[in-house]
Amino acid sequence: MPEYRKDPITRRWVIFSTERSKRPKDFGHVTEISDEKECPFCEGNESMTPHEIFALRNGSEKDGPSWKVRIVPDKFSLFESEGDLYKSGHGLYDSMSATGVHELVIETPNHMGSIENLSYEEIETYLMVLKNRIIELKKDYKIQYILVVKNYGSEAGSKFKHSHSHSHIVGLPVVPKRVKEEIDGAKEYYSFRERCVFCDIAGQELAEDERIIINNEFFLSFCSYAARFPYETCIYPKKHMGAFEETPDEMFSYMAKILKDTVGAMCKVLDSPAYNIVIHTQPVNQVMPVLYHWHIEIMPRITKVAGFEWGSGFYINPVLPENAALAMKNTLKR
Amino acid sequence: MPEYRKDPITRRWVIFSTERSKRPKDFGHVTEISDEKECPFCEGNESMTPHEIFALRNGSEKDGPSWKVRIVPDKFSLFESEGDLYKSGHGLYDSMSATGVHELVIETPNHMGSIENLSYEEIETYLMVLKNRIIELKKDYKIQYILVVKNYGSEAGSKFKHSHSHSHIVGLPVVPKRVKEEIDGAKEYYSFRERCVFCDIAGQELAEDERIIINNEFFLSFCSYAARFPYETCIYPKKHMGAFEETPDEMFSYMAKILKDTVGAMCKVLDSPAYNIVIHTQPVNQVMPVLYHWHIEIMPRITKVAGFEWGSGFYINPVLPENAALAMKNTLKR
Repeated sequence: MPEYRKDPITRRWVIFSTERSKRPKDFGHVTEISDEKECPFCEGNESMTPHEIFALRNGSEKDGPSWKVRIVPDKFSLFESEGDLYKSGHGLYDSMSATGVHELVIETPNHMGSIENLSYEEIETYLMVLKNRIIELKKDYKIQYILVVKNYGSEAGSKFKHSHSHSHIVGLPVVPKRVKEEIDGAKEYYSFRERCVFCDIAGQELAEDERIIINNEFFLSFCSYAARFPYETCIYPKKHMGAFEETPDEMFSYMAKILKDTVGAMCKVLDSPAYNIVIHTQPVNQVMPVLYHWHIEIMPRITKVAGFEWGSGFYINPVLPENAALAMKNTLKR
Repeated sequence: MPEYRKDPITRRWVIFSTERSKRPKDFGHVTEISDEKECPFCEGNESMTPHEIFALRNGSEKDGPSWKVRIVPDKFSLFESEGDLYKSGHGLYDSMSATGVHELVIETPNHMGSIENLSYEEIETYLMVLKNRIIELKKDYKIQYILVVKNYGSEAGSKFKHSHSHSHIVGLPVVPKRVKEEIDGAKEYYSFRERCVFCDIAGQELAEDERIIINNEFFLSFCSYAARFPYETCIYPKKHMGAFEETPDEMFSYMAKILKDTVGAMCKVLDSPAYNIVIHTQPVNQVMPVLYHWHIEIMPRITKVAGFEWGSGFYINPVLPENAALAMKNTLKR
């Protein structure tokens, strides 16, 4: 059974998920999926996954073909979804039961690897399903934070080599450290300037127009001034908005367009790299209407993280965000 | 010229070192070194490196053969070592000139890849050279923190494939975030319990004896209760000691022994993986005699970090530290 343990110095949580690998040699095993017959996410192979939690269907039968987006439990879940949350101490150490939710969203019935190969309409549908699923999951009192994550390619930690486009919805019993850091930073900025730091960043990016890739009616994609990784990109809603799932439906076609085009530009410049996408939104049970601003982070995995980064928390980026943004912007003109 | 930029939300620093790669295809390039003739760190090839800063010699000529440990500037330095430190603002963004020191310590004249292949005496000599070099570098008023890092294997970010054992000394103009987090955690613990959290951890580890690999007169190696990575290990001095360079000379043979044997046990269990080693010591100009406790962190690179980790700051570890420690301890008995 998985267990959460907290580092007594840095207060970071580690999930010990010992079911995931039995022997040292099993680490990082990547499953090669060469065609649709072997792919558990393809239409027609529904029996290869656990029973679906939700599927967008037009009257077709549960766990059968003919659907647009499908949500299933992750076979390799990080959590026990049953059981109560308990926290316990052990000398100066703290642990917690691994109570949480781990679901897979299969974004399309067709065997497409990277999200930019989906149509605008498919991406819009997927994002709307995500919104509705998050609204549903928020009703579980044990969940403090809902993280949406996509891994594409084995360098990005995906278990599948020629993958079928999918993402993970993870419902956590605590607010993760990375989000806490953003909230703490936003709080400090707010106490000083009484404005949302994300809104101010969007404002400065628009005024300077040096790192912007795409600017549409509701969203902005740009390379952060202090991006950790080469060609790292983020997408902000231009108007202040704390939670992803509060985004009005009419903005989703714009969200789909900027996501497909930004990932597409990155894939063109970098020749289809492995990448991670995460959605950062505000915690479930904390009301912080003026502070937090949801956003998407897109991180291509083209450099290795070395001892210096692990030891210092500094990142070394060999590409200026201004140059990365320009290269990506140029692919859109062609 | 490299530039430091600070993320306005999370306050992490990113070093833009654009000299390091000119084209997108250059990322992660690994140099294959098949024998000693091509290795810039081997005895006899001293002309392949920049002029030495220091070498432990018995009267032999500078930049010639016949030495035990040699320190040279890193050809791919992250910094400009000349020039004054300046900080500047740009709207809500902050940047800083890349003023710092980046040196390579060549640990042996012989072409050995991994540190556990060196003899106890060679490792002791290397560690003593490290101590003396740190004492020297602390005199530079621009340096706030000295980080020692080792990358072995390309998965750990080393630029060399069959590498010659070496490490990096990095002198930084700010205290890195990862160390600040440790200091903040140690401060909070101290304000509550009036004891050093590292000393208390060592005490609990000794009392439980479930995660210890080696326990000698002065040092302890163990897998942390909440280790981020499988088989991640740390080495603590058993007595409270803030700075690495304050370690008395007579403890260095014990330090060399526990380092070689711990890395050796890890390499045996995991079949010579890529790994990173970092030394965390207290900041140069901060006096915190009761708070901080220097230590070594050893991180094998056998799992990939995926979107979930990047997005959350949580780590997923498939191996319990108790099991990892037992496996490593068992190799020492044979």
